[in-house]
Amino acid sequence: MLKVGVITTGGTIEKVYSEKTSTVANLYNQIDRYLGRLRLPDCDVRVVPLMNKDSLEMTDADRTAILGAVEQVLAEHSAVVITHGTDTMVQTGRYLQQALTELKVPVVLTGAMTPLGFEGSDGLQNLTESLFAVRILDPGIYVVMHNQAFPIDRVRKDYETSRFVSTD
Amino acid sequence: MLKVGVITTGGTIEKVYSEKTSTVANLYNQIDRYLGRLRLPDCDVRVVPLMNKDSLEMTDADRTAILGAVEQVLAEHSAVVITHGTDTMVQTGRYLQQALTELKVPVVLTGAMTPLGFEGSDGLQNLTESLFAVRILDPGIYVVMHNQAFPIDRVRKDYETSRFVSTD
Amino acid sequence: MLKVGVITTGGTIEKVYSEKTSTVANLYNQIDRYLGRLRLPDCDVRVVPLMNKDSLEMTDADRTAILGAVEQVLAEHSAVVITHGTDTMVQTGRYLQQALTELKVPVVLTGAMTPLGFEGSDGLQNLTESLFAVRILDPGIYVVMHNQAFPIDRVRKDYETSRFVSTD
Amino acid sequence: MLKVGVITTGGTIEKVYSEKTSTVANLYNQIDRYLGRLRLPDCDVRVVPLMNKDSLEMTDADRTAILGAVEQVLAEHSAVVITHGTDTMVQTGRYLQQALTELKVPVVLTGAMTPLGFEGSDGLQNLTESLFAVRILDPGIYVVMHNQAFPIDRVRKDYETSRFVSTD
Repeated sequence: MLKVGVITTGGTIEKVYSEKTSTVANLYNQIDRYLGRLRLPDCDVRVVPLMNKDSLEMTDADRTAILGAVEQVLAEHSAVVITHGTDTMVQTGRYLQQALTELKVPVVLTGAMTPLGFEGSDGLQNLTESLFAVRILDPGIYVVMHNQAFPIDRVRKDYETSRFVSTD
Repeated sequence: MLKVGVITTGGTIEKVYSEKTSTVANLYNQIDRYLGRLRLPDCDVRVVPLMNKDSLEMTDADRTAILGAVEQVLAEHSAVVITHGTDTMVQTGRYLQQALTELKVPVVLTGAMTPLGFEGSDGLQNLTESLFAVRILDPGIYVVMHNQAFPIDRVRKDYETSRFVSTD
Repeated sequence: MLKVGVITTGGTIEKVYSEKTSTVANLYNQIDRYLGRLRLPDCDVRVVPLMNKDSLEMTDADRTAILGAVEQVLAEHSAVVITHGTDTMVQTGRYLQQALTELKVPVVLTGAMTPLGFEGSDGLQNLTESLFAVRILDPGIYVVMHNQAFPIDRVRKDYETSRFVSTD
Repeated sequence: MLKVGVITTGGTIEKVYSEKTSTVANLYNQIDRYLGRLRLPDCDVRVVPLMNKDSLEMTDADRTAILGAVEQVLAEHSAVVITHGTDTMVQTGRYLQQALTELKVPVVLTGAMTPLGFEGSDGLQNLTESLFAVRILDPGIYVVMHNQAFPIDRVRKDYETSRFVSTD
């Protein structure tokens, strides 16, 4: 059975609608509940709710904390998925790549353009793909979104089309 | 067959998530599509998309336009439902009440605390109740939300509990 | 606050898909969970799971049990909703009508053509309408489905159109 | 852009609830509509609705027709996904394996334990995984379900747990 650690850091994928403020915000964890909708009979998933931030507000200290969580998870698991805001997902991934030079397993960053639970959300698709990807991809750091897996050093967010694209 | 005119004016019930701005906004009409999910075999519904505004931004001119639309609908239909933001729903209802002194049918204002299509939305419940209410209520102007029908002169929004309450 | 007793007896509204048999069947209670999706701040709902049967299999003894449950609920509540299979809903309603000659509150029978939780289900619409109807209808026994309330002695199921129609 | 042909043959994944018969059956195509919910910006999907059968009723002639459709799709596409009933999915896959001895791309069979559109369905998860799998898997024939990819000669359906398991 594959042991996967899912580190949650916030971003659009985990935003919810607040009736008090009439806005969307990172208020409470959602990833656990949505993973419960997937059938993962051969996958032992542990969710690590690390922080719940819009990725535009992430600091260097936050990225250090993410690196620390990844190292902890790697000690006990055979793969890592990180849910993250899309705006600085690539930045965090490259930071991890510089620090984790001898990866023996895949580390996947994923997120969403529309929050989980909102009509038309891509969140559950991206979670589904990421948990499948870590079974098959070679060691390394990737962004997995919208049916594609991008090595972290060859990917950027395209704001015009609300997707990630290869920089090759 | 009951002929109902549904006048849509915006408000939370019709907000959608925008991937460009990462916010919720009144961008396009949604009421039609959601009414299509209800079974209304004895109800001839015509949707009149009048405006799509946060009700905090509604002006006197907007309320005059709503009154005009209600009068037009009343000429041809046996009941009226108005979808509207909750913040000034009572204000609009009382304005209509002053102008429409000889109502022979019910006019129902409704809306939502969480937009249609978002997990936990009360929008479809409120639409369902409003279309049922106009069959049974006496002539007059009402707010219908969350299993209750309030005469317009005895209702206020309670922000603490995200619901409407009687002022009796 | 309105006190409503919801007596559940099975029928299509409460059928679920069984992966073991690849069929739909009345296996476990669903009404409670779906009522939890509605906002009912002024409604004290108690669910009484009486039986879980296809209504074509209901016996005289089952109808006697439903009558007993209604009488119990009436002693403590101001309204009754009964979820029931559509095939013999009218038969059960007329049996109740003969026995309950001095009703002081409305008793509503409802159900669904497609089970709760299946795409296109009318179950939540019908529950929403029924809980609203018992606030407003005069004392008596009714079928409430698809935006309409029918007095029990003037209604039949129309199999061709999957709806109830008036016999007037 | 990856060109994928999706051949649909029926099975539980494509069953719908019939109000006329109160049963689930393979009545009309659903796969297209559900694929429309996925974001596949780098994937050119063509759906080929070949048949719509419970896989227990599939004949030798049906399997010959599936083989023919696969061969046609292979001529123009870089991958194949076949939606199929789970009961004889492995049988069909092995038949294809015997005939297609020089595959240069992956061919994935998938399906569902609960139909698309029913609460708790695994159908969209399996479609998501299959479309991701054909990008990454080596040439060969696989069953992809529930976060796993099984080579066709080492897999069986486990009826007790409603999943596929490895025969290794």
